[in-house]
Amino acid sequence: MWDVAEELKAMLVFAEHRYYGESLPFGDSSFKSPRHLNFLTSEQALADFAELIRHLKQTIPGAENQPVIALGGSYGGMLAAWLRMKYPHTVVGALAASAPIWQFENLVPCGIFMEIVTTDFKESDPNCSESIRRSWDAINHLAATGSGLQWISEALHLCRPLTSSEDIQNLKDWISETWVNLAMVDYPYESNFLQPLPAWPIKIVCQHLRNPKVSDQQLVQNIFQALNIYYNYSGQAKCLNVSETATSSLGTQGWSYQSCTEMIMPFCTNGIDDMFEPHSWNLQELSNECFQQWGVRPRPSWITTLYGGKNISSHKNIIFSNGELDPWSGGGVTEDISDTLIAIKIPEGAHHLDLRANNPLDPQSVLLARSLEVKHMKQWIREFHASPKTAVLGYF
Amino acid sequence: MWDVAEELKAMLVFAEHRYYGESLPFGDSSFKSPRHLNFLTSEQALADFAELIRHLKQTIPGAENQPVIALGGSYGGMLAAWLRMKYPHTVVGALAASAPIWQFENLVPCGIFMEIVTTDFKESDPNCSESIRRSWDAINHLAATGSGLQWISEALHLCRPLTSSEDIQNLKDWISETWVNLAMVDYPYESNFLQPLPAWPIKIVCQHLRNPKVSDQQLVQNIFQALNIYYNYSGQAKCLNVSETATSSLGTQGWSYQSCTEMIMPFCTNGIDDMFEPHSWNLQELSNECFQQWGVRPRPSWITTLYGGKNISSHKNIIFSNGELDPWSGGGVTEDISDTLIAIKIPEGAHHLDLRANNPLDPQSVLLARSLEVKHMKQWIREFHASPKTAVLGYF
Repeated sequence: MWDVAEELKAMLVFAEHRYYGESLPFGDSSFKSPRHLNFLTSEQALADFAELIRHLKQTIPGAENQPVIALGGSYGGMLAAWLRMKYPHTVVGALAASAPIWQFENLVPCGIFMEIVTTDFKESDPNCSESIRRSWDAINHLAATGSGLQWISEALHLCRPLTSSEDIQNLKDWISETWVNLAMVDYPYESNFLQPLPAWPIKIVCQHLRNPKVSDQQLVQNIFQALNIYYNYSGQAKCLNVSETATSSLGTQGWSYQSCTEMIMPFCTNGIDDMFEPHSWNLQELSNECFQQWGVRPRPSWITTLYGGKNISSHKNIIFSNGELDPWSGGGVTEDISDTLIAIKIPEGAHHLDLRANNPLDPQSVLLARSLEVKHMKQWIREFHASPKTAVLGYF
Repeated sequence: MWDVAEELKAMLVFAEHRYYGESLPFGDSSFKSPRHLNFLTSEQALADFAELIRHLKQTIPGAENQPVIALGGSYGGMLAAWLRMKYPHTVVGALAASAPIWQFENLVPCGIFMEIVTTDFKESDPNCSESIRRSWDAINHLAATGSGLQWISEALHLCRPLTSSEDIQNLKDWISETWVNLAMVDYPYESNFLQPLPAWPIKIVCQHLRNPKVSDQQLVQNIFQALNIYYNYSGQAKCLNVSETATSSLGTQGWSYQSCTEMIMPFCTNGIDDMFEPHSWNLQELSNECFQQWGVRPRPSWITTLYGGKNISSHKNIIFSNGELDPWSGGGVTEDISDTLIAIKIPEGAHHLDLRANNPLDPQSVLLARSLEVKHMKQWIREFHASPKTAVLGYF
């Protein structure tokens, strides 16, 4: 956005989503009662954006008759696409980067996400994904031995030693999420989105996982070396903290609530097409957790009812861009739907790489994606200026 | 709908709007607290319809891959159009009959509604509208005399005699609303929408208002004869009740609340372009009344922000039909917006005449309108069946 704004003579506006950052409708108690949380929905967020755009047009000199384009990545990309779908009078088009608008209900196979994570590691080195696949049993075997929990805790340099089988499950979930995050941020240059990381971090991580056929102990020690790339690239960490996977705050409370109400994304693994322990999608389990944590239960069909699922061809002027390394591309729109609902694939791209600032190490594919995106945006702006304007008259 | 359903092999579904009829979310206390009324919005109603359509498709054998068309008149017509705008994946098109989607904010002049009412009476007989225009002062003059209130009460056969100047204002409002209602239901045959009425009731009413240049007393007596057509066509009424303008229940409580929150329609009169006493649009007055009655205040810009106001050209497959006798046509879409956003005008039509059952006395213009509507509906259905279907797969 920063790079393109000048070329398009655009004003940049970053709208903060309600219940994130400083936009807390009930201040410190916003997350303390289900009644305070009733206003946290994607629909309400879109309404905020529509009101904000109207307000800006009415109050900023010269803004009234200018076109607006929505841009966003990830959930923000879904919102950008949905804003164009629900308020087409408000934005002339939307760039939805890495927006998994189909990661709902049964629109895509629930295993696709973890399959893409696996592919990223496998394409770096088949021994790497195989090492990870074997690591779960290695942990399970060691955990079943007398001093196993203590040994693992030390081998992984955990800040708090493991003491129960529940801790082991949490450990494996945390390790899994680390591999997921690495797939999301497998950028071609040093970056700091979820954690400070080297260029192409999966390649670096996989240098420690070249041999799957070692002893359980050796495998866990190798896993530590790999994890240490992700959690300790800075070299400052004295130990690894199983309760954290990202350093920056992405509004985990808000997303946790939304994942319990609207944003119900089925995920599953089978251990064959992916490198994880098998886990089927369990809505009832989620529902119970959500009720316990937030006093609400999920509405797994609502997003597709509201936004149309795969039946969105009546809309216009949305670009869906996806990096093929990004596991979220599995729930994204990766084929053109029409002349004006465009899919852009970025083979060497991770999670919304195209939205990041230009970088000398950018692969050719993301440069091409960005230039296509700008081409479409310019087209939307031209169409806006070419269309007859509705006279805005004050009649009172 | 009944006449056309068989031809289109259609199932008819009448969806009841929440807070109307028997659809009361909090039963008898639905209207007793602003907290119970928070769920009464047009957006929530549209969401209900989207959920209902999904439910019907999932539960009625053979329904799943069939197209759905939304039809409605008046507010129901607005909802039909808005459903197509907000949930285009749910309905392939909409017939919005007499839907004043532009009777909001300053999209049309606030006086247009009463001007059309006036035109209806004037075109029947210029002396008729002139008699009505003069009647207000006649009432004011008489009311200012010693026994004036009693005299007017008797001349108009009121069930409850007038006792205050506030009563006089109520009386004039009630008479005005009667003329408005007559304009809405000026149908070419006997009907019973708001009241049992003869064919072309304005013509009959105006037979009693042929001479505006009579004494105040004679004018009021003539007004009584005219009112008596509307309120006593059956001949059963012993007196006229100032607190009632319609016999059938149209859900006045629900609409009263909605008129205080979202449905803010500015109306005004100037006594020159219309036959009423001058009255400017006063949002503050409305706001205070709303706060007193419902504990809420209006959001006069929200409907245009939400549904786009005049900027709706990105949508497709909506027919806006309007009778030119209907005062609501002033806030309606009466010119084509595009090839697929169609306006149909019915010169001899009152309020959604096209949605009424076929009648031997139907004028040619409404027959033409209905056949055009069916033609477009068939086209939407053809397009639906011609378009590639999204495979609905169960992945779990």
